Amino acid sequence: MAQKTAQLLISCPDTRGIIAAVTGFVAQHNGNILEADQHTDPQQGEFLMRLEVELDGFQLNQENFESKWSTLAKQYDMRWHIHWSNVTKRMAILVSKESHCLSDLLWRWKTGELHVDIPLIAGNHESLKETAQSAGITFHHLPITPTNKSAQESQLRDLLDRASVDFVVLARYMQILSPSFVAAYPERIINIHHSFLPAFAGPKPYHHAFERGVKIIGATSHYVTNELDAGPIIAQSTMPVDHRDTVDDLIRKGRDLEKVVLSTAVRLHTQDKILVCKNKTVVFD
Amino acid sequence: MAQKTAQLLISCPDTRGIIAAVTGFVAQHNGNILEADQHTDPQQGEFLMRLEVELDGFQLNQENFESKWSTLAKQYDMRWHIHWSNVTKRMAILVSKESHCLSDLLWRWKTGELHVDIPLIAGNHESLKETAQSAGITFHHLPITPTNKSAQESQLRDLLDRASVDFVVLARYMQILSPSFVAAYPERIINIHHSFLPAFAGPKPYHHAFERGVKIIGATSHYVTNELDAGPIIAQSTMPVDHRDTVDDLIRKGRDLEKVVLSTAVRLHTQDKILVCKNKTVVFD
Amino acid sequence: MAQKTAQLLISCPDTRGIIAAVTGFVAQHNGNILEADQHTDPQQGEFLMRLEVELDGFQLNQENFESKWSTLAKQYDMRWHIHWSNVTKRMAILVSKESHCLSDLLWRWKTGELHVDIPLIAGNHESLKETAQSAGITFHHLPITPTNKSAQESQLRDLLDRASVDFVVLARYMQILSPSFVAAYPERIINIHHSFLPAFAGPKPYHHAFERGVKIIGATSHYVTNELDAGPIIAQSTMPVDHRDTVDDLIRKGRDLEKVVLSTAVRLHTQDKILVCKNKTVVFD
Amino acid sequence: MAQKTAQLLISCPDTRGIIAAVTGFVAQHNGNILEADQHTDPQQGEFLMRLEVELDGFQLNQENFESKWSTLAKQYDMRWHIHWSNVTKRMAILVSKESHCLSDLLWRWKTGELHVDIPLIAGNHESLKETAQSAGITFHHLPITPTNKSAQESQLRDLLDRASVDFVVLARYMQILSPSFVAAYPERIINIHHSFLPAFAGPKPYHHAFERGVKIIGATSHYVTNELDAGPIIAQSTMPVDHRDTVDDLIRKGRDLEKVVLSTAVRLHTQDKILVCKNKTVVFD
Repeated sequence: MAQKTAQLLISCPDTRGIIAAVTGFVAQHNGNILEADQHTDPQQGEFLMRLEVELDGFQLNQENFESKWSTLAKQYDMRWHIHWSNVTKRMAILVSKESHCLSDLLWRWKTGELHVDIPLIAGNHESLKETAQSAGITFHHLPITPTNKSAQESQLRDLLDRASVDFVVLARYMQILSPSFVAAYPERIINIHHSFLPAFAGPKPYHHAFERGVKIIGATSHYVTNELDAGPIIAQSTMPVDHRDTVDDLIRKGRDLEKVVLSTAVRLHTQDKILVCKNKTVVFD
Repeated sequence: MAQKTAQLLISCPDTRGIIAAVTGFVAQHNGNILEADQHTDPQQGEFLMRLEVELDGFQLNQENFESKWSTLAKQYDMRWHIHWSNVTKRMAILVSKESHCLSDLLWRWKTGELHVDIPLIAGNHESLKETAQSAGITFHHLPITPTNKSAQESQLRDLLDRASVDFVVLARYMQILSPSFVAAYPERIINIHHSFLPAFAGPKPYHHAFERGVKIIGATSHYVTNELDAGPIIAQSTMPVDHRDTVDDLIRKGRDLEKVVLSTAVRLHTQDKILVCKNKTVVFD
Repeated sequence: MAQKTAQLLISCPDTRGIIAAVTGFVAQHNGNILEADQHTDPQQGEFLMRLEVELDGFQLNQENFESKWSTLAKQYDMRWHIHWSNVTKRMAILVSKESHCLSDLLWRWKTGELHVDIPLIAGNHESLKETAQSAGITFHHLPITPTNKSAQESQLRDLLDRASVDFVVLARYMQILSPSFVAAYPERIINIHHSFLPAFAGPKPYHHAFERGVKIIGATSHYVTNELDAGPIIAQSTMPVDHRDTVDDLIRKGRDLEKVVLSTAVRLHTQDKILVCKNKTVVFD
Repeated sequence: MAQKTAQLLISCPDTRGIIAAVTGFVAQHNGNILEADQHTDPQQGEFLMRLEVELDGFQLNQENFESKWSTLAKQYDMRWHIHWSNVTKRMAILVSKESHCLSDLLWRWKTGELHVDIPLIAGNHESLKETAQSAGITFHHLPITPTNKSAQESQLRDLLDRASVDFVVLARYMQILSPSFVAAYPERIINIHHSFLPAFAGPKPYHHAFERGVKIIGATSHYVTNELDAGPIIAQSTMPVDHRDTVDDLIRKGRDLEKVVLSTAVRLHTQDKILVCKNKTVVFD
């Protein structure tokens, strides 16, 4: 389980021979490829690839990889990213009052299912302070008032910066982030929305689902962009409901969806299994 | 399987003692209740009930039921409907060019899974004429031109009237019906929409789903009202998709959903298992 | 949400007029029926019913119900049970080393989703002591050795007796209970098995599922009987897997199924929504 | 949609550099790789790969591929297979009395969803003769009597041989094939079993599912081997059922699962997306 690997993510304009060039490069430096996934988006003419390389025997490492790799990367005009599995990603969690997503993430983290460091949890309410602290994590209470919205966000940004956070999870945070915040964490803020988007974007989706009389409810995890609930979708799940279900039943059933859909997105992100291409995700799972 | 029964559907303002009154009435006339389902919509204060009564031994029949029942029905201010299982419902099917829903309904009908009479199939294109005729059903070609829309609909209404049709199935008919047509068949026109409504209402839902990058597609059957794709939902189903799926893949996968979701709605309708309460369905399945 | 109600469960040989008699009895004592569900098992000739009656206005209560009701109950030869919602059921949880089901049940209990009292948690290992205690619940460590199996069970039975436990949840307890233990809690011991029974009964189901190369895994909650993993099934759920999933992946994915399937069964049991008829359940949800 | 491609399937002992070698070979002959999927089975130490290469520009073809490729294939000790998309696979369908799977396959074939030639349909009953013939396909009636079992199978084998059939679909054929028949079509006989295997292998699975009181039913498509219902599983699907469902309801609901699960397996097989490794499938979809 603790096999040391590197995850290499690549996007570039599609052309012949990329796979051969990339896998040839790895072989040339004695790397063993454990997983190779690729996808071509024909509309965008974009080639996307993920490689997982065993570190044992690989002649490249954090120090010398880039210098060797850059020629190839330039030749194919690649956007690329490599993650070395001995580096643990740092995840901040933002919450409001609802505890289910936070409790679920913390359980997965404590039992080792989710391999991250969690330097901090912050909330605009104090409701989940105890939940955070009983897991041994610092909780920051950053209340929002009618007048302090942007000051509160600055405070939050400072906290994240100082904690050298890699990505941010909105575990039912319920607040809209400013464009500058979003720009600071491109494709690195994960939100859970409690509906099968694009249906019922915005507030109170379960109430709207109840009013509409749908026979299925859902949940959606996505990267946050500046358009509300419209960022690249990472994972979705649905379950049946019927006329006997009240709004409270939808909320209760939906919690089970939300937990699984959010933790799936977080797991995929920590494993570098997601690439974004034009507001859509390619998930190599 | 051919057990003779009557299906009694009731809606009325909620109050104490309705179930006792109704089931007492059946017992008093020596009826054996095979199934009894009820639901109270607390928001509307509406009581809804479905009874299935064995005809063997029941002292009431098509001739004398109403006269005996009307006192009770008036006392509780009921909207009600009774269907005697020896009467077969008459279903018309409207189509355009897509064959999958029509072929599926016809297969279920030929094998006895769907217990209806089908006096006619009509289409604005001639593409499915042979499919209809090879099942032994008259096909009416009623083309639509930029100028004949309302004349075409009149013709269609005449056909349905003359055929004494009980309900109409839009098996991917793709045409919007006028308010007067809809009013002539209240809660008796069933449509299949190829998305998980309310997402992607209107034309080309699979294209929109592809553009949005959803990870789940769906299909929805509903009663037609004057608002496009906004009538009471009867059944929905979903299935996962991923980045490898092209629009054509979504269309192909979606067909399997559409067939099941439409035929489910038709089966429920023929078995009088659906009640409508304020643009929502109560499905007693 | 805190509406006071009584749940009445009835099984008896099927005959005409039972629903009318029962609902007439409730109406006669001014009871308002909130929900009425019934089912007839034609193979067994058994009639099964669940009524939920509003206590507000109902002229019967815990003191006088049985004396009024017994005439009817005898007349129809009923097995029956009534639960008054102001009485909270007492649930014991037995565990071994796996924490996910216990943590999940405790979260649902702490947040009020699961309405029970939990007088005790017992385990044959000490691994989950802290989890129990941090929720404020007494943990009993009852280790099992090659020679003390029956003495350990006696101790456990004493604990449950003294705590006046209504039902027992095996949250991955992994031990087989003796026939006398099972007989003491008929239809009141709920187990979670980590496969879609009857496939992969017995130990290590995920390993067997992996070996067999199934494309779907599942979980099953059921009442415990003397035959291993063969009692009446209450709830099941499944999810897709593929060739990329290792045994560890199956175990990880399966945990999410197990939590939902077990907590569903526990919720249904606490709400008196389950009737057993010949090793099968009738679930009125 | 009619893009010309070749599908190359490879299995060999896992070692370093295979991907680079294979994709390098394709690049060297100016091939454009449209899809590349690989999987390593760590238990078997087996490397499995599927490549889809665009024929436009590729310097190899049906005539010269093998001579160029064989050096590499020998070096890595590969089992391999290439399919050129301009060659249409030839599929025989065996049936008994149930029509749903056959009708479904024929509909998919007629509409172009399933890209195969169907030289013949054979049945041990005559029930589906008309279905076959109305699709323009020759139907062979090969009845089975208590004494002719092996003679009937010889006749069937002759028919398949003369028709140069590539693979055989058992569309609810319900007969056990002899080991010599199975050996003649290794990993090329696809069966649909109407349960979620390994539960309810053998006859009458819906009856057994009903007796057991499961809450979920399923269907399984698999390659036929000499052990009944125990071959490599290709696809499975499940759906919920409840106490209201009779055996006939399970059979009806199950038909919708069977159609989708069988046609999925057939589609995957025709697209060369399935590799078998030790009685398990690797499905590159």
